Order: sequence, then C-alpha cells, then structure tokens
Amino acid sequence: MIGCELCELSVPTVVDNDKFAVILVDDANYPGFARVIWKAHVREVSDLADADRLLLNDAVYRLELAVRDVMQPLKVNVASLGNVVPHLHWHVIPRYADDAHFPAPVWAQAARTTDEAVLVARRALVPQLAEAIARRFASR
Amino acid sequence: MIGCELCELSVPTVVDNDKFAVILVDDANYPGFARVIWKAHVREVSDLADADRLLLNDAVYRLELAVRDVMQPLKVNVASLGNVVPHLHWHVIPRYADDAHFPAPVWAQAARTTDEAVLVARRALVPQLAEAIARRFASR
Repeated sequence: MIGCELCELSVPTVVDNDKFAVILVDDANYPGFARVIWKAHVREVSDLADADRLLLNDAVYRLELAVRDVMQPLKVNVASLGNVVPHLHWHVIPRYADDAHFPAPVWAQAARTTDEAVLVARRALVPQLAEAIARRFASR
Repeated sequence: MIGCELCELSVPTVVDNDKFAVILVDDANYPGFARVIWKAHVREVSDLADADRLLLNDAVYRLELAVRDVMQPLKVNVASLGNVVPHLHWHVIPRYADDAHFPAPVWAQAARTTDEAVLVARRALVPQLAEAIARRFASR
C-alpha cells in the first residue's frame, strides 16, 4: 500500500521470501530485537488464510529459537501490535533482568540504564544472530 | 509450580480444558481484554512440543476471532510477554482510537481518559464476548 512504511520496507533483511521478511531492529537498548514482517498489506493475524497463518507462526517460532540460542535471554517477548503501522508484523525481543525496562514491557517507561559494557557484549552477538536466523530458515 | 499465580489461577474461566484456560481480564480501561493461559508451567512458546504449540496458536487465533466479532476493535494486539509471571500466557487486547493509550501499546504511559459512556457501552458487550468465545472453542 502506498504510504505504508512496511510495504515500502527499505532496511536490510536477514530472511526475505515472497511471503515475509525477517529484520534485525537497530535498537540501542535491545540488541537482538528482531521482527517478522508479512509482505502483503494485511492488518490482523486472523485476516490471513490458514496456510499463511501457520507459515507466519512457524516463522515467529524459528526466529524465537534463533534469538534464544544466540542471545540467551532471561525471557523472550513476542508481540503483534501494529497500532502505529497496521501492517502485520511480529516483534521478538530478548529480555534480561538488567535491560532498560525489565520486568515491564519495552514500551513502558524505562526503569534503568543498562551498563554500556553489557550492551556492547550483547551487540557483539548480533552478527552471530543473523547467521543463526539464516540457518533456522534455510531448512524451509 | 508453588507460588506461581498462573499455576494457582483462581479467576473465573470462559474456556477450561486440560491444556489451557481462557479468561476475561477485568481491566476498567480495556473491556474485552482476554488471555489464554497454558496450564503447564512452561516459560516460552518454544518450550512447547510442536502439537501443543499449534494448539496454543489455534487458541489465540480463536480468541482473536471472537474479540474481533464482538468488540469490533480498530486493531487487535496480541502478545506473550511473561516477564513478571514467566508462565506462558497470551494477551489479546481490542484497541480503539479513543482508548487510554492508542496508538501506543497498553503498557506505555496513558495518553488520555476514554469517555465513560464509551467504556460503559464496551463493557456491556463483555457477556456477549464470553458467549462468543465459548462458541469458538466448542468446535474442538
């Protein structure tokens, strides 16, 4: 759709096929934050045909596995919100006890500043995460 | 697990089987907010066996359909966070342009107070939502 920033996506993708893309979100506080973006301009999960819904679900699952493997988070947060950009996408966010908002959601008010050395170490894992995601999706 | 508030769930359920329960969340600002709670004390979606993961995914989908049918939201938000209670559960939240946080997530700082008459009208739909959810899950 013209004017939809996800239809006109111009960021580098880690996975890119005819149905969806996986991207790494460049969030300074949340290294390893990743998204699955459905290609068609669809609003809700329940607007998808069954086969597409299962395909998207499988994609979010594979992404969660890769994020857990590499980022070793305390918890994973998975969400499809889309109030600002109503084009179906899923957030997969590795969470840690020392992250900026824990235990609140990342959209709440920040609770602390994470130690910069910790963030540097987590950011250093991101290239490895990109490889792990690519591997997780290579088998389909 | 002893001490886990979701293992020791004591609120009324709309759907209740050996694998999961569906509850309506009593949130004054978000009539129609509902949750799917997995019964076993599991932390992440990706900790489930494949069949259970698909069953839970189907439950969230059925719940989303019922919420859309009855609450007629502008957008549905679907999320599995669990930072405070690391026992697998999914939030399904009907969102409206005039709700307390729109377009931000419901966990952000409130942006406004929704007109009380609007909230009263939405709350009046909740019994109908409970029936719609029960119907959506009766076929499995």
